[in-house]
Amino acid sequence: MALAVEKTAGGREYKVKDMSQADFGRLEIDLAEVEMPGLMASRVEFGPSQPFKGARITGSLHMTIQTAVLIETLTALGAEVRWCSCNIFSTQDHAAAAIARDTAAVFAWKGENLWEYWWCTERALDWGPGGGPDLIVDDGGDATLLIHEGLKAEKAYEKDGTLPDPSSTTNQEFQIVLTILKDGMKEDPKKYHRMVERLVGVSEETTTGVKRLYQMQANGSLLFPAINVNDSVTKSKFDNLYGCRHSLPDGLMRATDVMIAGKVAVIFGYGDVGKGCAAAMKAAGARVIVTEIDPICALQACMEGLQVLPLEDIVSQADIFVTTTGNKDIIMVKDMKKMKNNAIVCNIGHFDNEIDMQGLETYPGVKRITIKPQTDRWVFPETGSGIIVLAEGRLMNLGCATGHPSFVMSCSFTNQVIAQLELWNERHSGKYKKEVYVLPKHLDEKVAALHLDKLGAKLTKLTADQAAYINVPVEGPYKPPHYRY
Amino acid sequence: MALAVEKTAGGREYKVKDMSQADFGRLEIDLAEVEMPGLMASRVEFGPSQPFKGARITGSLHMTIQTAVLIETLTALGAEVRWCSCNIFSTQDHAAAAIARDTAAVFAWKGENLWEYWWCTERALDWGPGGGPDLIVDDGGDATLLIHEGLKAEKAYEKDGTLPDPSSTTNQEFQIVLTILKDGMKEDPKKYHRMVERLVGVSEETTTGVKRLYQMQANGSLLFPAINVNDSVTKSKFDNLYGCRHSLPDGLMRATDVMIAGKVAVIFGYGDVGKGCAAAMKAAGARVIVTEIDPICALQACMEGLQVLPLEDIVSQADIFVTTTGNKDIIMVKDMKKMKNNAIVCNIGHFDNEIDMQGLETYPGVKRITIKPQTDRWVFPETGSGIIVLAEGRLMNLGCATGHPSFVMSCSFTNQVIAQLELWNERHSGKYKKEVYVLPKHLDEKVAALHLDKLGAKLTKLTADQAAYINVPVEGPYKPPHYRY
Amino acid sequence: MALAVEKTAGGREYKVKDMSQADFGRLEIDLAEVEMPGLMASRVEFGPSQPFKGARITGSLHMTIQTAVLIETLTALGAEVRWCSCNIFSTQDHAAAAIARDTAAVFAWKGENLWEYWWCTERALDWGPGGGPDLIVDDGGDATLLIHEGLKAEKAYEKDGTLPDPSSTTNQEFQIVLTILKDGMKEDPKKYHRMVERLVGVSEETTTGVKRLYQMQANGSLLFPAINVNDSVTKSKFDNLYGCRHSLPDGLMRATDVMIAGKVAVIFGYGDVGKGCAAAMKAAGARVIVTEIDPICALQACMEGLQVLPLEDIVSQADIFVTTTGNKDIIMVKDMKKMKNNAIVCNIGHFDNEIDMQGLETYPGVKRITIKPQTDRWVFPETGSGIIVLAEGRLMNLGCATGHPSFVMSCSFTNQVIAQLELWNERHSGKYKKEVYVLPKHLDEKVAALHLDKLGAKLTKLTADQAAYINVPVEGPYKPPHYRY
Amino acid sequence: MALAVEKTAGGREYKVKDMSQADFGRLEIDLAEVEMPGLMASRVEFGPSQPFKGARITGSLHMTIQTAVLIETLTALGAEVRWCSCNIFSTQDHAAAAIARDTAAVFAWKGENLWEYWWCTERALDWGPGGGPDLIVDDGGDATLLIHEGLKAEKAYEKDGTLPDPSSTTNQEFQIVLTILKDGMKEDPKKYHRMVERLVGVSEETTTGVKRLYQMQANGSLLFPAINVNDSVTKSKFDNLYGCRHSLPDGLMRATDVMIAGKVAVIFGYGDVGKGCAAAMKAAGARVIVTEIDPICALQACMEGLQVLPLEDIVSQADIFVTTTGNKDIIMVKDMKKMKNNAIVCNIGHFDNEIDMQGLETYPGVKRITIKPQTDRWVFPETGSGIIVLAEGRLMNLGCATGHPSFVMSCSFTNQVIAQLELWNERHSGKYKKEVYVLPKHLDEKVAALHLDKLGAKLTKLTADQAAYINVPVEGPYKPPHYRY
Repeated sequence: MALAVEKTAGGREYKVKDMSQADFGRLEIDLAEVEMPGLMASRVEFGPSQPFKGARITGSLHMTIQTAVLIETLTALGAEVRWCSCNIFSTQDHAAAAIARDTAAVFAWKGENLWEYWWCTERALDWGPGGGPDLIVDDGGDATLLIHEGLKAEKAYEKDGTLPDPSSTTNQEFQIVLTILKDGMKEDPKKYHRMVERLVGVSEETTTGVKRLYQMQANGSLLFPAINVNDSVTKSKFDNLYGCRHSLPDGLMRATDVMIAGKVAVIFGYGDVGKGCAAAMKAAGARVIVTEIDPICALQACMEGLQVLPLEDIVSQADIFVTTTGNKDIIMVKDMKKMKNNAIVCNIGHFDNEIDMQGLETYPGVKRITIKPQTDRWVFPETGSGIIVLAEGRLMNLGCATGHPSFVMSCSFTNQVIAQLELWNERHSGKYKKEVYVLPKHLDEKVAALHLDKLGAKLTKLTADQAAYINVPVEGPYKPPHYRY
Repeated sequence: MALAVEKTAGGREYKVKDMSQADFGRLEIDLAEVEMPGLMASRVEFGPSQPFKGARITGSLHMTIQTAVLIETLTALGAEVRWCSCNIFSTQDHAAAAIARDTAAVFAWKGENLWEYWWCTERALDWGPGGGPDLIVDDGGDATLLIHEGLKAEKAYEKDGTLPDPSSTTNQEFQIVLTILKDGMKEDPKKYHRMVERLVGVSEETTTGVKRLYQMQANGSLLFPAINVNDSVTKSKFDNLYGCRHSLPDGLMRATDVMIAGKVAVIFGYGDVGKGCAAAMKAAGARVIVTEIDPICALQACMEGLQVLPLEDIVSQADIFVTTTGNKDIIMVKDMKKMKNNAIVCNIGHFDNEIDMQGLETYPGVKRITIKPQTDRWVFPETGSGIIVLAEGRLMNLGCATGHPSFVMSCSFTNQVIAQLELWNERHSGKYKKEVYVLPKHLDEKVAALHLDKLGAKLTKLTADQAAYINVPVEGPYKPPHYRY
Repeated sequence: MALAVEKTAGGREYKVKDMSQADFGRLEIDLAEVEMPGLMASRVEFGPSQPFKGARITGSLHMTIQTAVLIETLTALGAEVRWCSCNIFSTQDHAAAAIARDTAAVFAWKGENLWEYWWCTERALDWGPGGGPDLIVDDGGDATLLIHEGLKAEKAYEKDGTLPDPSSTTNQEFQIVLTILKDGMKEDPKKYHRMVERLVGVSEETTTGVKRLYQMQANGSLLFPAINVNDSVTKSKFDNLYGCRHSLPDGLMRATDVMIAGKVAVIFGYGDVGKGCAAAMKAAGARVIVTEIDPICALQACMEGLQVLPLEDIVSQADIFVTTTGNKDIIMVKDMKKMKNNAIVCNIGHFDNEIDMQGLETYPGVKRITIKPQTDRWVFPETGSGIIVLAEGRLMNLGCATGHPSFVMSCSFTNQVIAQLELWNERHSGKYKKEVYVLPKHLDEKVAALHLDKLGAKLTKLTADQAAYINVPVEGPYKPPHYRY
Repeated sequence: MALAVEKTAGGREYKVKDMSQADFGRLEIDLAEVEMPGLMASRVEFGPSQPFKGARITGSLHMTIQTAVLIETLTALGAEVRWCSCNIFSTQDHAAAAIARDTAAVFAWKGENLWEYWWCTERALDWGPGGGPDLIVDDGGDATLLIHEGLKAEKAYEKDGTLPDPSSTTNQEFQIVLTILKDGMKEDPKKYHRMVERLVGVSEETTTGVKRLYQMQANGSLLFPAINVNDSVTKSKFDNLYGCRHSLPDGLMRATDVMIAGKVAVIFGYGDVGKGCAAAMKAAGARVIVTEIDPICALQACMEGLQVLPLEDIVSQADIFVTTTGNKDIIMVKDMKKMKNNAIVCNIGHFDNEIDMQGLETYPGVKRITIKPQTDRWVFPETGSGIIVLAEGRLMNLGCATGHPSFVMSCSFTNQVIAQLELWNERHSGKYKKEVYVLPKHLDEKVAALHLDKLGAKLTKLTADQAAYINVPVEGPYKPPHYRY
């Protein structure tokens, strides 16, 4: 681990794969801007007043072209930004290069190992002696986790000199987190104290990260306010659903070139992500089978003509397996052994524990044949039959393709900008406690409204009389909070 | 209005179109039972303990075959039942006859006029001198409205002898309500006092009725507890969506036999009902245009490839117009004049004020040609061009076809049964105040679970370890309350 | 069989169910005209020159509202017409009444028995002593069959006095045909000789009838020229496909009100009709399984995400069974016994021998419960379990609903008009031998062109340069004969 | 043009981009074999008898992974093979390397210029002094064209010493062809004479090439028998339709990452390719507009809910433009100027003259910004607005993605193998004249049958009785030649 921070001519820190890709990155950022009307409108609306003047923002979120447009929106509003990716395979190196060269401190490359990953996260949080960031943009909650674990460790050390003990866990990744914290403690045993003190709040992008936040809120351990961006309608019902409908087939095609039509695809979980994945596979001519634990989602699948069965019933008949559950241990190595030759196994959920990669890697005699990066064929010794695993079990749409397209990410990221603005503007008002908040509906509707023109959509206007009749303001919001869309 | 209550040999009251259709009704009820697993499972689970023993239930809900199975589930659980329809065209006369003959007091027929409609509602609420019903099953809130208006009138009368004044409103239907109340007051000025005193609560079926209830809750005028069945996921995301996806084309086909493929269909509103309607039209090969006031729903429509435009932009190009908004004044007579010859205009929302029927009926020189019941061609004198209006602007799926199919109504009505049980079981506990409640998620999930077997769906079971990981009980509920499905 | 021909005031013969429905029929004919632009354009183009002046046309084709518009197009072009239905359940009685009253000699009603059916066919062919019709519009080939069998019988009789022997066949319907011929022989042993002499030709509507014609052509027994209208692209790829996509769900809904979403539907045969049926069921949310003998069609089904399996593999799991094969013995009583309770069994192919109705009717102890006309529940004694059979195994879309909608029938019937014109105009030229012909492509394209305006479609025009480049005339035809669309 | 043929250690000629990619190519070939059951079955069925023993086959067909499996099937059956690509962008360099190293003489790389392209074609035809190939596998007809032009030139030269005159044409590519022929003439004025003498025949892959062949047949200039593989049902109704349904979105995503949902996509032409493209765009959530010259195809588009309009009506409103016509001058530079900023313009038809690239390239002041290979943004000086052109107007699915997936190409290529076998086996029988032939239906059905197992499809078997009833052999073929599928 001889990783070294580099510096631009102007002195800004970074660590990326290949700075020469910056021009290419810039060209694609230019294209993406045209597809991201919500972010561009935010620049127009808020840029002149520089609301983020003086704010330091750390982001831990897939360092893609779309994220580049987000970062440059934050800086256009006055912020200083440091960034890392929240997944070892999700960085687009040309995007990272362009941002590192032109805009912000970036620590991210495609194909980090886990040590590198956490090193990058530390760097993104490292704003020098004066403490950490004012605000965090998080995706999956790893930046938030590191701060919470860091403070916990510092408190234990403060109390009785206890250092983090990597051997206390069997989880390989958490061992790395503890090691990093332990190493850091020696240098500076108050770093996370200072960081927490400064932090105004976090806005969290994804279902998985939000789940962690609500657990912390429930057990009283949340250290700062959090805005749950994931549950903005314009995020979870768009990015999760329509984003995956786009990027699942994209990832499958780029990784395997396999014909989807005629195949049997199993989608694990029929939440927003699963719904998008199932819709995509059905639209491409596959026969789709869904697995579900929740009877309501299962019944929704039935109403769409999808078969709902447990894995064991169809493990040996299906061609494509996609996990979307947010849960762990969904496809185990014993399942993989029963699959057809060259069955494709992949995950589009946030974490890589849906597929039993450890079981696969340690299976006696198993042979790994790397077709190309992020596309491996694993051959079992007993049968000589192989399965194809994408992105080593991590987010296949980011590992094997380029993630969600710009337009739908513009919805998600406009929510992020609004959430960050809200946290920052209210930093002294006491409006936000150490709890998890959702953005109010009128902002959700505003995000949507910013994306209609680009598609040529024209809204109908309520008359005052009609508004009164259904008891809503003429300008909205139009729906009660429990409305499901 | 010389309407007279009739009596069965056994002495039960009723008023239906044609008792000789009872056998036919019974045959279709038998078929429907096979398609309504939730209701049949409720009979098996709760029937033996007769939980509704002693309960009087009044229903105001489309008197269809499916409702017949609901009524017989309520009686199988021990209730006494009186029923009316909540729409002048929605009764299936053979269903009404079968129930009137075999099971409960029914006052309903297809093609009531408004006077008859409210007479039926009164009859359904009239349990004799001992007061009204213990429980109400309401759809659109007309039974609830009558009681609230009745009590208000009685209180005014009590105070200073004021009688309801029909001339105080220009709304034709409300004039009838006031007249009925006025007439009733003379006979018994305490009827609604006694009714409210006895009433345990109401469970409301539909978006429109729920909206009324929340308004009453907000202004403190709600007289008894209400359970909002509409917003059970297994109701609004199934009946409203998949029910309409089925029954909109059904109604169009039965009423007009028109080819849907190749046509331009305008769906007003892209809520659950609108989504179902748009999906149906698209699936049938129409080109679909959506009108929306809400930018979020509008953006959802865009993501499905639908065009979003205001009526004025496409009024003269479309072939089929379907209102689903729950708002009023959606298609006015001035719009109808601009439509293509034989454009079809219909409404699938609860009330008949989405389409300006009064404007049409009173348009100078307009000519109405009844093709068959509930299918009228209206010809404008200036152009000689006509439009086809279904069900006189009322719910076209119930007016022109038979409403939603049994299976999806089984979901809705199982929620009704559970809601009624909940209100009745907790009648003495004080659990429910004069507010609006939604059923807890575990009951929602239960309703779904009861409908999976019939479709051959098999759930996956969480392990304890997995359940702990995502922080839910192994047996559910699996989702947070804000989850949108 | 005491059937008597009736006469209008003007002396035209007819036999229909209820002449009082003529007004209602006329209203629906008026609506249909707006939906049948091809036929209406034919009236405009050809009406003035009265090309059918002097021509007698007999039609044997479902006597529906759409057919009424066809008949009135033929008469508008100068023809005299006599008509019968080609299916015992397919007549719409109000259409028959309107035509009988206003336009042509009709012998048809919904619910004929087989004797009545063939009596009607005879009447439609009976133009009095001067011989039969000049032209036949046939659907399924029954009129053509009767003439061929009639001539064969007359020749046998001529030769050695042999009379047709009904006992020579076990086919119940063919026994009736032979009996009718035998009875007719006694009165007039030269009737079919005269008929054949006069006949200019037939245009045949449907796959089944065309198959018969090609067999007769192959074995040299065809007595007059035939135009295969079925294989016009604007017929088979529209009526068969899009017509059935519309009318299968229509028939299912009207007959059973069953929810299609979530169900398993088996479509037997994946030809044009099967493709339309499968698309409709999939679109409505069913899971679709296809049975096929032809590997090409089977592979097409796979590419659309449909499962291809033989009946025995899924007979006990499916909910809806639809035969579309044009073959016989597709669902036998032994299969029906294995089906789920209340499985729906129906046929949308031309003949009623796809479903083993005879096996069902004669099954020991089987019980038939008529829910309503054309919807029967058959209960097996061993299991007490029943299946629902639609239209007694005959064309369910015509038996239980109103057949294909006007717009698509306008395509088919415009081909019919053109075919009839072609036969009649060339009656002296020798252009058509005793063979089967398909209409030339430019006429096929013309039929399509006549239907575009109504849908707002606008064609692109080839430049002369472009036309030369792809070697077609600027005005078409644009495709080689083998092109498959 | 200092191109030099290289040689493997074993002495086989080749010219590819990068031989070090051969291992990667081999891995993907291994995967593809599992997806190409028709080709693998051909190896099993025909391999042992080595039917191509002694046959020299030249292929001019996209040098992809799928083609590699085709080539290795031909060699597995005994052939010697030389290959070039039929498009300058369609070669997959790893596929070319693997085949060059292991199997056959390959002359192809991604990104040839036109001189290189025709040099490669010459090399593939160059079997040394003994004449050319015995058989040709052609795609688009360029190999066939070169031979026809070559012989024509030699005959002119033979007659009066005339040499080909490149200045006789304004078509830039044809100038190159003539130059090559002129140069070759000097060395060997009888090369094409010998080639034609030896040639047994050609099998042609694609609509465009077939059109050329029929024109040559019509004007009597065809020099050898040709089998039209394109019009096998298992080719044109699969590869063209389902292949493009897969590879159009694949190409769009890889080239632009643009979100398809919500966009307006214009598909030029609604033939098999256009149908696949339109289906893909609709399935991905775009709103699709079709342009057509043929009223039948236009009406088909309408029936699928697509809008049919000419380009001028929607040029400034659409986001994605895809040409599929097989005609020229479809999108001109004057159209491109009217498009929205960053509208995507691409072609999926065989030739690159559908889009006016020359007009664009020579437009005064236009600026080309290459985002990445095969993705260019062209900015107009007047507006500063740009359009994105894929693959320089050539086949975008091959230029920007990897072409059609293996499974559907297995159908096409199994037809190729059968066609080549047929030509070779009948080379002495006189069965094939200098005309264009289609494979008989039983072979078409066989190709389909070979692909069903892989998808788990099981056919139903006809009984002898059923076969007799519909007048087909029990084992097929099942359909008449004119059947359209």
